[in-house]
Amino acid sequence: MLVNGKADNPISPADRGLAYGDGLFETLRISKGRPVFLEAHLARMQTGCERLGIAFDTGDFRQDIDHLLSSPDSPDMVLKLLVTRGAGGRGYRPGAETRPTRVASLHPLPSFTGTPGRVFVCKQRLAAQPAFAGIKHLNRLEQVAASREWPDDSFVEGLMLDYQDHPIEGTRSNVFVVRDGTILTPELSACGIAGVLRQHLLDTLAPGVETTTIDMENLRGADELFFCNSVLGIIPVASLLYGAESWRYNSHTVTNRARDLFEAALQTC
Amino acid sequence: MLVNGKADNPISPADRGLAYGDGLFETLRISKGRPVFLEAHLARMQTGCERLGIAFDTGDFRQDIDHLLSSPDSPDMVLKLLVTRGAGGRGYRPGAETRPTRVASLHPLPSFTGTPGRVFVCKQRLAAQPAFAGIKHLNRLEQVAASREWPDDSFVEGLMLDYQDHPIEGTRSNVFVVRDGTILTPELSACGIAGVLRQHLLDTLAPGVETTTIDMENLRGADELFFCNSVLGIIPVASLLYGAESWRYNSHTVTNRARDLFEAALQTC
Repeated sequence: MLVNGKADNPISPADRGLAYGDGLFETLRISKGRPVFLEAHLARMQTGCERLGIAFDTGDFRQDIDHLLSSPDSPDMVLKLLVTRGAGGRGYRPGAETRPTRVASLHPLPSFTGTPGRVFVCKQRLAAQPAFAGIKHLNRLEQVAASREWPDDSFVEGLMLDYQDHPIEGTRSNVFVVRDGTILTPELSACGIAGVLRQHLLDTLAPGVETTTIDMENLRGADELFFCNSVLGIIPVASLLYGAESWRYNSHTVTNRARDLFEAALQTC
Repeated sequence: MLVNGKADNPISPADRGLAYGDGLFETLRISKGRPVFLEAHLARMQTGCERLGIAFDTGDFRQDIDHLLSSPDSPDMVLKLLVTRGAGGRGYRPGAETRPTRVASLHPLPSFTGTPGRVFVCKQRLAAQPAFAGIKHLNRLEQVAASREWPDDSFVEGLMLDYQDHPIEGTRSNVFVVRDGTILTPELSACGIAGVLRQHLLDTLAPGVETTTIDMENLRGADELFFCNSVLGIIPVASLLYGAESWRYNSHTVTNRARDLFEAALQTC
């Protein structure tokens, strides 16, 4: 764990990351001792800094990553990068003197079989807030509340809807639906995080993905449903519990194609 | 500054307050060396803990407050109380072993004249999120973004609207409108923070306050407009800049009555 490049630097209790969630983060997969999709993660965080008005060059993390990966515990891990606006300012109003705080840390890779699993629909909804949609900021109470609904460890993900009943994403992943040969993923202009693996699949998954508004009816009777994130890769879905119903997905053709694309990225990073 | 009751305790970079804004805070006025509206602040934070599912007894702050106020720099200060769910869990999902982190700190009282001042209307809107409305949680990017719009120090507050153009609150305060002898304040079921001084005014301000949905038209031609928070008290408004218009408020009769109620609370705490 490095805070502003040093192992023993403290986090100020006055840091605006703690006070207001005033910052951004990324979680990257480390494969063969190297970060996967590093440039895309740094670029997304840079976009986030611009959206929030945080004067920070995400390239500053490169030295931290080199340092941490010079002696990793394992070649397969999770790298977390977090930046805040720093400490200072008068209440919510940032001060001109505020300097960003950056934290880089390595964590064990969570166990994950990749077997098609069960998904629940979260009661916690995502609010429409275009100002912060897409970026991976530190205001994550919606995801925390949704994750607290997890019925038991037999479930692989929770599906989050907006207040108009549109599926948007998983608690920690993006979602894709395959129906009648068409691959769909929700558009994220009002809420949701625009995932790095989601973008990679948008760029590479044949025969092309349609980014659109999705209804629960699109999921009923769909051929395939899967989630994705940069750490676990593809999360295949066997069934979706929705109220008293359980919708099953027996095909995984496109899901497996997506997994092959992720596996290829792990090899070529 | 005390972290879990000790002056030299560090904040873990893995704390969920920093990672996700997974916690709550209160800012209290210290008057004559004593906290004002202490019970109401602790009660609001306790409600917040219950809403977020954080197992914490806000009474734990009492020993910290006694300790900090045993030798304050000044009899008039600001006390900040902050609690997070603590460090731990698998990503967004909290762990059973997670223990809350509490931070108590004293700060100088900001300078504030109380002279009627100018208010701007923030471009940053408040999202409708009933799950977290009313409580003072740590997900405050909306307030940070709104505060960054502050035109210059001649302005005393920014008015925040929801996405349906309803005035909800100030960037750091609640708002009251006086019109034709009626006192109005926005209802906060979908967004906004239910302020402790707001509640005190609802309980005590004659001839009674109507809590309702407010439109910008209610502010045009209103007799009085004022904001309130527990630290500064009453923020009187001389004019509101709204697009190309400037709406003036020349009467301050109810505003002054509210200020008298706040001044009385400072004396009797």
